[in-house]
Amino acid sequence: MPKIAQKAIDMPASPIRKLVPYADAAKKKGKTVYHLNIGQPDIETPEVALNAIKNFDQKVIEYTHSAGLESYRNGLSAFYQRTGLPVNPEDIIITTGGSEALIFGFMTTCNPGDEVIIPEPFYANYNGFAVTAGLTVVPVASSIESGFALPPVEEFEKKITSKTRAILICNPGNPTGYLYTKEELEKLRDIVKKHDLFLFADEVYREFCYDGAVPFSTMNLEGIENNVIMIDSVSKRYSMCGARIGALISKNHEVISAALKFGQARLSPPTIDQIAAEAALDTPQSYFDNVVEEYVTRRNIMVDGLNSIPGVFCPKPSGAFYCVAKFPVDDAEKFCQWLLEDFEFNGATVMMAPANGFYSTKGSGQQEARIAYVLNQDSLHKAVKVLEEALKVYPGRI
Amino acid sequence: MPKIAQKAIDMPASPIRKLVPYADAAKKKGKTVYHLNIGQPDIETPEVALNAIKNFDQKVIEYTHSAGLESYRNGLSAFYQRTGLPVNPEDIIITTGGSEALIFGFMTTCNPGDEVIIPEPFYANYNGFAVTAGLTVVPVASSIESGFALPPVEEFEKKITSKTRAILICNPGNPTGYLYTKEELEKLRDIVKKHDLFLFADEVYREFCYDGAVPFSTMNLEGIENNVIMIDSVSKRYSMCGARIGALISKNHEVISAALKFGQARLSPPTIDQIAAEAALDTPQSYFDNVVEEYVTRRNIMVDGLNSIPGVFCPKPSGAFYCVAKFPVDDAEKFCQWLLEDFEFNGATVMMAPANGFYSTKGSGQQEARIAYVLNQDSLHKAVKVLEEALKVYPGRI
Repeated sequence: MPKIAQKAIDMPASPIRKLVPYADAAKKKGKTVYHLNIGQPDIETPEVALNAIKNFDQKVIEYTHSAGLESYRNGLSAFYQRTGLPVNPEDIIITTGGSEALIFGFMTTCNPGDEVIIPEPFYANYNGFAVTAGLTVVPVASSIESGFALPPVEEFEKKITSKTRAILICNPGNPTGYLYTKEELEKLRDIVKKHDLFLFADEVYREFCYDGAVPFSTMNLEGIENNVIMIDSVSKRYSMCGARIGALISKNHEVISAALKFGQARLSPPTIDQIAAEAALDTPQSYFDNVVEEYVTRRNIMVDGLNSIPGVFCPKPSGAFYCVAKFPVDDAEKFCQWLLEDFEFNGATVMMAPANGFYSTKGSGQQEARIAYVLNQDSLHKAVKVLEEALKVYPGRI
Repeated sequence: MPKIAQKAIDMPASPIRKLVPYADAAKKKGKTVYHLNIGQPDIETPEVALNAIKNFDQKVIEYTHSAGLESYRNGLSAFYQRTGLPVNPEDIIITTGGSEALIFGFMTTCNPGDEVIIPEPFYANYNGFAVTAGLTVVPVASSIESGFALPPVEEFEKKITSKTRAILICNPGNPTGYLYTKEELEKLRDIVKKHDLFLFADEVYREFCYDGAVPFSTMNLEGIENNVIMIDSVSKRYSMCGARIGALISKNHEVISAALKFGQARLSPPTIDQIAAEAALDTPQSYFDNVVEEYVTRRNIMVDGLNSIPGVFCPKPSGAFYCVAKFPVDDAEKFCQWLLEDFEFNGATVMMAPANGFYSTKGSGQQEARIAYVLNQDSLHKAVKVLEEALKVYPGRI
């Protein structure tokens, strides 16, 4: 029997799925499980997008252009321009989810063995994409105490070697919800410029900014237009995660041309989903206003609720729909597993994603868990109550 | 300005798109261009699949399981079993097209620097997937004179080194249309077994077999169940190329588990397209009977037509909807370009894919072109006539 490759052994399993068997077992026992572990929102997809699917009337589901439907690229460009991002159609490659955009970006800019610096905690699948491209992730620690603000420039400088090819940020951040300020991004710009690095910016949560915070896009950073590669996706913006439509955006047309070769090899992104994504561009502003209002309420229920539990600390994020909380426990992974296996309150328990999976540095985030506040308000209230009661009796409480 | 990666420079541009600018220019001049260069069939997608899209009634387009919808995996397994392939649901990972299945397969089984042996000419995008995974393609030559039959076992043996990890075949073949016999596949089995290699089999054209030929699947090769990785796709079977739904199939569950980690990193294949693919499983046999009858007629028009042109040779394939023809010209790529730039007959010309892009060995296939007979019968008749007239006046005719 032939052996699988070292790369496949190195490939990390998804940390948000690690506890799924325990959740399944809990449900089999009749427990209600509040899923705070995964970023699958319950928000409805805009009607314009759903209608475009229902109205699909072509007789053959054909390939599209490898860079995506031209009409969609034009529409997406106009969408960006309306929000002040100087993105032209020729700066865009439509991809199969933001995931593929990042893989294409890594493949296009980094050779195997190259290093990518990422502030941690970070979206765990970045590890998988790095392994896929043969890259080494070099973490720069941000801390829960500072609300996961950008680490000081010196910390980045310390990590830069001759193998460093890129810095990758997620803004607003998954898992932290932290929204980088313009000033923080300008500091990053200076590092990127000084060392002539690529700057990858995963901005898929841009629409989810709260308390009047206005997101500043890396596409508006002056002087590093050829360095910036923005990763985008319709998954969260329009609550259509299953459409798998993303985009790789760059003013650097050497990058675009090279990435398109990877795009041509896989032929095209899915057609009907592109049509739905294009239709979604006409989503009325009221949709976003309602969604943001709902998420602010949910965030407040969750974060205020967590902070009211003795010993729990959770910075209040300004973006995305995640937060990372620190619990007064020996080990958050054990705590999360215990919640599923050994605890219930009024017949219910909570599933969270242990934060150690979001850190590259061993031992970091040991007491932390990521919470996606993607459930309805009533469920969130109940979930907070479960956590409060659980911490009263958890044997590993410290 | 930061430089792109060596890998991105090495990444081959798609040979079937190389001449697209010339085709565009020809169309601008008012010429009709018969597109024989690309495998986008004009056959209608089955109604059951199109209806499933129109009837999509979920309010949120959610992620599916990373291995694909469970109901689809079950249905696909039943589909295989009905056709005699011993595939269980747990042997299946649903992917975003056959392309992703092959990338996952390469990533899972081969380390960068490893070698994959492929009979040439072969589907050009295999080169792109090999570059993506950092692999070296080692070609074994098949010849147009033998109709592109499997090269002798000794030719494979000669190419096997300590770095050889896999053999990859496409059956029925793109670009050759050749259908490997059971005996040929058993010879491959013996090599694979002797050297403990993986055997990748791209079987996406299985439904397109002609003149009573019955395809033999690698899934039915006894004794190498843990070595075989079958690549499948709904693109051609149901003429739904734009759905981007494929599958990686293996009895080797170490491979399946590892490939699933790559699947988890990219979250899931597109949801609506999976629903359409699942619905397509109910396509009536009459659909396939009609399609096969149509393709046989088209093949005969094209292949018999080509062979009736003095100096042209085209083996008659038993499968897929491609053929490779040898032309009495100095250079098929120049000929193809000249057809678009400098020739027309009754206001029309033909676009073919120069076959050099399907060979890994430099200089091979110099006089050959791949033809996809995916147009209606009238267009094919006219395309043959264009080629006949063109060869009377082409300056590089030999």
